[in-house]
Amino acid sequence: MKDKLMLMIPGPTPVPESVLSALGRHPIGHRSADFSTIMAQVFTDLKWLHQTIHDVLVLTASGTGIMEAGIVNFLSPGDRVLVCCNGKFAERWADMCDAYGLDTVRINGPWGEALDPETVRVALEADTAKRIKAVVITHSETSTGVINDLGTLARHIKAHGTALSIVDAVTSLGAISVPMDEWGLDVVASASQKGYMMPPGLGFIAVSPKAWQAYETAKLPKFYLDLAKYRTEAVHHTTPFTPSINLIFGLQVALEMMKSEGSDAIFARHHRHKTAVRAAVRAVGLSLYAQDDAAASPAVTAVITQPVAAERLRSHLRKHFDIALAGGQDSLEGKIVRIGHLGFVSDRDILTAISALEASLTELGYASFAPGAGISAASQCLAA
Amino acid sequence: MKDKLMLMIPGPTPVPESVLSALGRHPIGHRSADFSTIMAQVFTDLKWLHQTIHDVLVLTASGTGIMEAGIVNFLSPGDRVLVCCNGKFAERWADMCDAYGLDTVRINGPWGEALDPETVRVALEADTAKRIKAVVITHSETSTGVINDLGTLARHIKAHGTALSIVDAVTSLGAISVPMDEWGLDVVASASQKGYMMPPGLGFIAVSPKAWQAYETAKLPKFYLDLAKYRTEAVHHTTPFTPSINLIFGLQVALEMMKSEGSDAIFARHHRHKTAVRAAVRAVGLSLYAQDDAAASPAVTAVITQPVAAERLRSHLRKHFDIALAGGQDSLEGKIVRIGHLGFVSDRDILTAISALEASLTELGYASFAPGAGISAASQCLAA
Repeated sequence: MKDKLMLMIPGPTPVPESVLSALGRHPIGHRSADFSTIMAQVFTDLKWLHQTIHDVLVLTASGTGIMEAGIVNFLSPGDRVLVCCNGKFAERWADMCDAYGLDTVRINGPWGEALDPETVRVALEADTAKRIKAVVITHSETSTGVINDLGTLARHIKAHGTALSIVDAVTSLGAISVPMDEWGLDVVASASQKGYMMPPGLGFIAVSPKAWQAYETAKLPKFYLDLAKYRTEAVHHTTPFTPSINLIFGLQVALEMMKSEGSDAIFARHHRHKTAVRAAVRAVGLSLYAQDDAAASPAVTAVITQPVAAERLRSHLRKHFDIALAGGQDSLEGKIVRIGHLGFVSDRDILTAISALEASLTELGYASFAPGAGISAASQCLAA
Repeated sequence: MKDKLMLMIPGPTPVPESVLSALGRHPIGHRSADFSTIMAQVFTDLKWLHQTIHDVLVLTASGTGIMEAGIVNFLSPGDRVLVCCNGKFAERWADMCDAYGLDTVRINGPWGEALDPETVRVALEADTAKRIKAVVITHSETSTGVINDLGTLARHIKAHGTALSIVDAVTSLGAISVPMDEWGLDVVASASQKGYMMPPGLGFIAVSPKAWQAYETAKLPKFYLDLAKYRTEAVHHTTPFTPSINLIFGLQVALEMMKSEGSDAIFARHHRHKTAVRAAVRAVGLSLYAQDDAAASPAVTAVITQPVAAERLRSHLRKHFDIALAGGQDSLEGKIVRIGHLGFVSDRDILTAISALEASLTELGYASFAPGAGISAASQCLAA
């Protein structure tokens, strides 16, 4: 049905009406006092969201561009970097490091499980010559629905002493606590179309003083992604290059909404939805790709739909109930569906998605569950 | 007055109501068939606008990011590039070439005049060893209101045989004809907040087969800006990284409007407005920074406001008439105002701006013109 689409994918995520309205405002000049007033508020709110007193910069780019900024500003050709690899996005960051001529060491872990922090600790402890310049971590791995143990990894990196932590927080920021300063994270990258409740097109990068120190000697070439240019202009509440003005209008409203809900309430909501979706999936007799509850992403749940064909289930939900789920990527294509529960998602949305999932499974001839079993399991979690 | 701002700056430019409405639509998944249908239309329309049968790719970045894509995809460290330098933006591209370790040769020309194509011809003809790999040209120099003679420059570059033409068409595309294939241009970069009648946040880059050939051996590192990734996905009507979905919604509408008006009508309108603004400025006794009519940009007119202080005039127009003009940049700060007449600007807007300019000059005590002289001169040009 036209205009009825419900996004339950891990990005883009649903956007509130008030944010959509702000997007449609007529642009103003980005070198005006009025725009700087907006940017000043945005910069302040971004620090709140990142739980940091350090710089959080705004770039016009999607998540991959932001992660690239996280690499090129702090490293030099030949620098050794560890990349924690247990999913498609983590592998992209490793490929990016290769593209920039870094000495990329992949710490591989099985997809669908959190990376064992011990493997990273061992690699870092063995590096007595301090050749490792950075560890790249994908906090919430969107391709598998796994959350890695960032807090523990950050502790091991701090113990190393010199390596920077470069974190892809694209689907974790705004869904779970990412206390940058408390954990001593150095670079935290995120993008607007996720926990921010915004359309895509803006990216954010938080930078620690230790990372800025590394910037001074980093030799990878950069210009548009040169973060020092952004830092200089942020002081004047602006950006070095023309920003995506209308997305900034929306961002201001979205951040205001997030502050109004409160970070504890936001994190609790995401936890509740993750728990409810997982309980429902189990109750209807399907399997979770990330089996360990402790490794389950608050943003997205990957479901092994066997014996139902994943793409058939996804099409059914799209066609009959106007609900978009995500499919599997790369080797997971056709094997899983991914249910996004990130950003502007309410308890009602979870019930809706599970109801439609139940109905679709039944209509596709899958009869291994008592009708209402999924809804009942989800409801109990939502009420808890 | 709140919500009354009229943008007469060279970007962001005014945005039509129908484009603003499209921006506020709820996002859909960028990996969906519905989105690919939109992208297919957008790619087709972009080729029309660029007068090319070759690839025109869409990136989430502002103009500087797009120009960087034009550099890093086709060149290797140490490559010699000529940069035509007669304004602030041209200098930015030279700085960017330096940042990437290119052998940057600046062909300097006076600001406020078109660069003499002969200086480029001589430099290219002297290069018998064919060490020059590219010539970077700013077609319409937004900082000075000058248009460079791209057609002639392109001829000289073709005569050289190996050098690529890399063109900043940010404020020329959609304002004046940029016949990519006819002129044999290799790389043409532009951005949404200009002739496209859109807010900022999207960039476009057209690439010739000769440039793709250079891509094969180009060694500058890239990932987010790696255009081969975009070319591969464009075949499937999509992008390699999450696009700025809501801006694409607006772009589709804006391109439809442009096609409906027709390119000849669009170019004639910009020519008419440029002529009218210049006639009015002369009629009120002020000076044009770009004095030669043949070198006048169709997008923006820089006005030397002496004896009136430029920033005082600009503030007056902003405060009393809700009209935003641009100021001077770098060495021109405080010396000029720049009147944008680019994109969604009608004859009425030109009359409005000139009326307000006349009124402001009078109110600021400047009395060197007969009341109505500017309006009368502009009207005659608009009627012609």
